Amino acid sequence: MSVQNTVGLKPSARRELVLSEDNLEDFARGAAFLGTGGGGDPYLGRLMAKNAIREFGSPRILGVDELSDDATVAFVAMIGAPTVLCEKGASGDDIDCAVQELSAQIGRPIDALMPGEIGGFNSTLPVVAAARLGLPLVDVDGMGRAFPSIAMVVMNFEGISACPFVLVDDHLNKVVVKADTAQRTEDISRSIAVQMGMSCLSAGYAMSGAEVKRATVHNTLSAALQIGEAIREGRKAGDPLKALIRVLETHPIYGFAQEVFSGKITDLRRETTKGFSVGNCRIEAFDGAGCMADVQFQNENLVVLVDGVVKAIVPDLIIIVDAETAEPIPTEALRYGQRVSVIAVAAPDALKTPQALAHVHPRCFGLDFEFTPIEVLAGAARA
Amino acid sequence: MSVQNTVGLKPSARRELVLSEDNLEDFARGAAFLGTGGGGDPYLGRLMAKNAIREFGSPRILGVDELSDDATVAFVAMIGAPTVLCEKGASGDDIDCAVQELSAQIGRPIDALMPGEIGGFNSTLPVVAAARLGLPLVDVDGMGRAFPSIAMVVMNFEGISACPFVLVDDHLNKVVVKADTAQRTEDISRSIAVQMGMSCLSAGYAMSGAEVKRATVHNTLSAALQIGEAIREGRKAGDPLKALIRVLETHPIYGFAQEVFSGKITDLRRETTKGFSVGNCRIEAFDGAGCMADVQFQNENLVVLVDGVVKAIVPDLIIIVDAETAEPIPTEALRYGQRVSVIAVAAPDALKTPQALAHVHPRCFGLDFEFTPIEVLAGAARA
Repeated sequence: MSVQNTVGLKPSARRELVLSEDNLEDFARGAAFLGTGGGGDPYLGRLMAKNAIREFGSPRILGVDELSDDATVAFVAMIGAPTVLCEKGASGDDIDCAVQELSAQIGRPIDALMPGEIGGFNSTLPVVAAARLGLPLVDVDGMGRAFPSIAMVVMNFEGISACPFVLVDDHLNKVVVKADTAQRTEDISRSIAVQMGMSCLSAGYAMSGAEVKRATVHNTLSAALQIGEAIREGRKAGDPLKALIRVLETHPIYGFAQEVFSGKITDLRRETTKGFSVGNCRIEAFDGAGCMADVQFQNENLVVLVDGVVKAIVPDLIIIVDAETAEPIPTEALRYGQRVSVIAVAAPDALKTPQALAHVHPRCFGLDFEFTPIEVLAGAARA
Repeated sequence: MSVQNTVGLKPSARRELVLSEDNLEDFARGAAFLGTGGGGDPYLGRLMAKNAIREFGSPRILGVDELSDDATVAFVAMIGAPTVLCEKGASGDDIDCAVQELSAQIGRPIDALMPGEIGGFNSTLPVVAAARLGLPLVDVDGMGRAFPSIAMVVMNFEGISACPFVLVDDHLNKVVVKADTAQRTEDISRSIAVQMGMSCLSAGYAMSGAEVKRATVHNTLSAALQIGEAIREGRKAGDPLKALIRVLETHPIYGFAQEVFSGKITDLRRETTKGFSVGNCRIEAFDGAGCMADVQFQNENLVVLVDGVVKAIVPDLIIIVDAETAEPIPTEALRYGQRVSVIAVAAPDALKTPQALAHVHPRCFGLDFEFTPIEVLAGAARA
């Protein structure tokens, strides 16, 4: 067993943050929000994390400034279609196995874990892994949201290799991918995931503490906690949407958010194809004036158009939430008749660099639109 | 670079056998015959082996008795559809890369190589690998013929793991499979091969010299040489078919062979599906009496029926050769109008044990027949 957490971590300099049974619901809800519809069922992931915390203890969330430059950090994630993730889950042994195999492949222990993305299942899975393996989680992720490809992470935009990239199925069959690009790693991994029954555990992007500081989105685990807390407190005060938007507007990583539409879901097309959930959700305004929004998604929500006009588009975050409770709704839980609000949030700056947009531009998702930041679209609408 | 040939080999006790430019054509032709229609184009493989021998020297063929029990031996093979192998080939760097990665994965040097199967491309590929890496080839293979799956080898029947199993594509992207069974390794590897463009290099079944002695088919490389020589010499004497059958009848591993049909190919169905070449070849007797044979294949020839009666069936070997020259014809080179003979050869005993038949019984290939050995079928026909 070569996974341990005794080296590479600086002595803590700030209030110790842990993920416990007390704040897990806030965290899972906030992460599901930032997951923009993707990343799998937050309820199942929360249950798994709760059980792991009960059995193995609460993992620490380590500020990025607490990390030594020579620490070794890796990401863990589930790969596959969210609709299948919900049914299969992860056994626990497969998580340990993935991290241990990655450690064996790189020939050194892993000191801390991080999520590849902030999304329902894929932010609680690292909590399970961290609890089981007695490792801390670093307060970062690879996207500051969720995306459907392991190539769409800041680590890749900044030149850090995804490989060796380990995949493990529920029978503990292991596959190690060593490809020349993250896209090639993604292509090979996704075909393996399909062969492994449409979903499997993965660990990869092993990197140093110095690389984590340079090439991830910071403070996103604590952001998830803050968002979850705002929704919970906002419900008590009677306006969770307002509380939600306020916390995002003042967050150093996001900084801009607005409600772009609200109404009732009147049409829903969804199919599972090539390992993705792909579809369109149509929403009609409550006022009956015929005003209409379309949200297109590929695991995650990609674009929202109101009466044919783009109101927000990837890489900016688009989240469909319950209109009353501000509960984020993952794409696979969207249902005809739901009363919803569509919230748009500015993407972290690291997703809007030229090298990032080469991977997460609307065209990368087959959308024939330019990327215009939500702040600009909102300003134009007001002018 | 951890591949070398300085340890684990006993001093030679018999006449030294090498594969050189002089006997390569015999070897490739004999191997193509034993390949029973599969294993890819023998011409392309022979060219590659010739170039490798010119550049790097002639690899020795090591008798199984010359191998130390603690030597490390591995198999190399190409995985994919023969029709694609013909077009893509292998660059050489990919072969080195596969063997070196396997060596790194098991943490020790590889002392000798062996073919997984005796077939056109997959018996000359290990010659290329051995020449390039300066390693000997052991006079064994995993099947004594060719089969469409890496689970269909004596090593697997005898409980030796295929894993770690390394796959490398033409861009040197590497994948290491560590699965619980050979069948699972096959399933995962084939989906990766499809993703890698329908063919890729592989190395696996790393084992000790003692395991090689126990769990492979012996003397099959020298058998290929003898078969090729018999065809060549037989052509000079005017009856290559007779010479071919004589050498097989007296061989300690095969021991029985006969011509079961001869005629003209009048119908051919062939499709490339799920990484395999699958089809049926119909042959009409020369005498015009309406007598007819059907040879069904999945990469390799599986069964020959004459007027609806089984004359030979897998795991026994069925080979379609040119009626005049006894040149073996791979499935992808079968053409309408060819004048051919169908030769049946008894399978090595290691393919007819209960644990072997669990993997290579006619039913494993979707054929609704029992396995009756060619010797029994021939006896019944004579009776």
